[in-house]
Amino acid sequence: MQPTNYAYVRGQVLPLAQATLHISDLSIQRGYGVFDYFRVFGNTPVFLDDYLQRFHASAAALHLQLPISDEELRAVIEEVIDKNSMPRSGMKMILTGGYSANGYEPADPSLVILQQPLTLPGLELVEKGIKIITHEYVRELPQAKTINYTMGIRLIEEIKSRGASDVLYRQNGVVSEFPRCNLFMVREDDTVVTPAENVLLGVTRRNVLELAGRKYKTEEGTVPLDDLYRAKEVFLTSTTKRILPIVQVDGQVIGTGKPGEVTRTLLADLVKLEEEMVQSTYKV
Amino acid sequence: MQPTNYAYVRGQVLPLAQATLHISDLSIQRGYGVFDYFRVFGNTPVFLDDYLQRFHASAAALHLQLPISDEELRAVIEEVIDKNSMPRSGMKMILTGGYSANGYEPADPSLVILQQPLTLPGLELVEKGIKIITHEYVRELPQAKTINYTMGIRLIEEIKSRGASDVLYRQNGVVSEFPRCNLFMVREDDTVVTPAENVLLGVTRRNVLELAGRKYKTEEGTVPLDDLYRAKEVFLTSTTKRILPIVQVDGQVIGTGKPGEVTRTLLADLVKLEEEMVQSTYKV
Repeated sequence: MQPTNYAYVRGQVLPLAQATLHISDLSIQRGYGVFDYFRVFGNTPVFLDDYLQRFHASAAALHLQLPISDEELRAVIEEVIDKNSMPRSGMKMILTGGYSANGYEPADPSLVILQQPLTLPGLELVEKGIKIITHEYVRELPQAKTINYTMGIRLIEEIKSRGASDVLYRQNGVVSEFPRCNLFMVREDDTVVTPAENVLLGVTRRNVLELAGRKYKTEEGTVPLDDLYRAKEVFLTSTTKRILPIVQVDGQVIGTGKPGEVTRTLLADLVKLEEEMVQSTYKV
Repeated sequence: MQPTNYAYVRGQVLPLAQATLHISDLSIQRGYGVFDYFRVFGNTPVFLDDYLQRFHASAAALHLQLPISDEELRAVIEEVIDKNSMPRSGMKMILTGGYSANGYEPADPSLVILQQPLTLPGLELVEKGIKIITHEYVRELPQAKTINYTMGIRLIEEIKSRGASDVLYRQNGVVSEFPRCNLFMVREDDTVVTPAENVLLGVTRRNVLELAGRKYKTEEGTVPLDDLYRAKEVFLTSTTKRILPIVQVDGQVIGTGKPGEVTRTLLADLVKLEEEMVQSTYKV
């Protein structure tokens, strides 16, 4: 028998199987909510401060207030981790518009916290790289992590049918981000570039920019799709995927068609940074 | 004591208080779902065929399949109406991406049906008209009635603080629709115009266009914001509001600043059409 997985819903920690929201919740009625997601490694949240800060910023963008203090939130996270047996996992915090009387106006927000199994990309995928397609779209509030993934999920079928692994959003010839990941490219002179506008400011994006800055020139700017096609290397970053090399964009082969040197170097540096981070947290 | 209100959730008719969805549902995880809403008048759904047709079209746009046949769906609607005591009400059908194992990929869709009290706009509001503001935005899939109302709900505070009742979306100087209503304007020569692009094809919109065509010239086309400011009359249409006159846009007074003749005529014609519709349904 599997151990019971616990979740937190509107003030209560209870078995995941019983974790529900009433159908008047504004997430169900109007897709109104924000969330964030961090990794748990050795039962320790990784970069928790950063994720909490972004969670607050997303909530503020939707005029939602967390029903508990940060101290209480950290205590709940600890309690859920303690009750579950998932040393390597992901934790999701969702904040919605609450149980709305008329199905439109926000009420007391619903806070939900759940822990999920997490598998990082296998070595094979990292060594081979992935293919992506592009699609004309910009998220409505790019800097907020809202729960609205209508476009990304709707495109799952098209991504599969075109033999790709993910979709990159573009608008008027300029690319921005993936539904759940940030984009990077490496120019001929090894400058590491990532889009500055219309993107969610990923925590992994920020860490990779910082690591890249120690060895290469870096740039947050405009990335035209045409430049991407001609890039030396392309990769994506995310909490669950860390760094994943991209070897084809819209059928165009990138560089040598194999993961490049800069991408590999940054992935190694990122793994090292995460290990240091977790060790320093243990010491506290 | 109030009579129990019943709802339908994933195959079961149960008291509304017990109507919940598991937190793994894609509406909660990713705001992924569509819905539709029709009025019930004398325990009879009004224009049900039209709403069912649009519900199917929205579902198809998100690659979602209804878990029951139309015949079964009509039977459920009838059962819920029979169990509840709400002769004048609204009914909402929500179809979501279902209980997703990984919180991203759709599973068997969740179908939810609930009946809600409904108050049509009072005579005072109809006689006085409302003020609206405009905001730069176009919905991501305008022809699908998705549950994503992030922008509209986020703007509630701004609408109130500017003394308005609703917000009209515009993009590059061209207006489209409200979060939950369609827009109409009347030109100096009494031509009745409504935006053709980037709008949800409202059932009330279609009925009003048809009624208007009996007495005036009508046009589905492009409506520049500047033309709207100078219109003779402006009004909105929706299932719950029928026709509501608009007397101010972004602080600009429309026409005489009072509801106009064409607007009043169309509202009277619409009320008559609805009554005929319900009576003909009774006869069946």
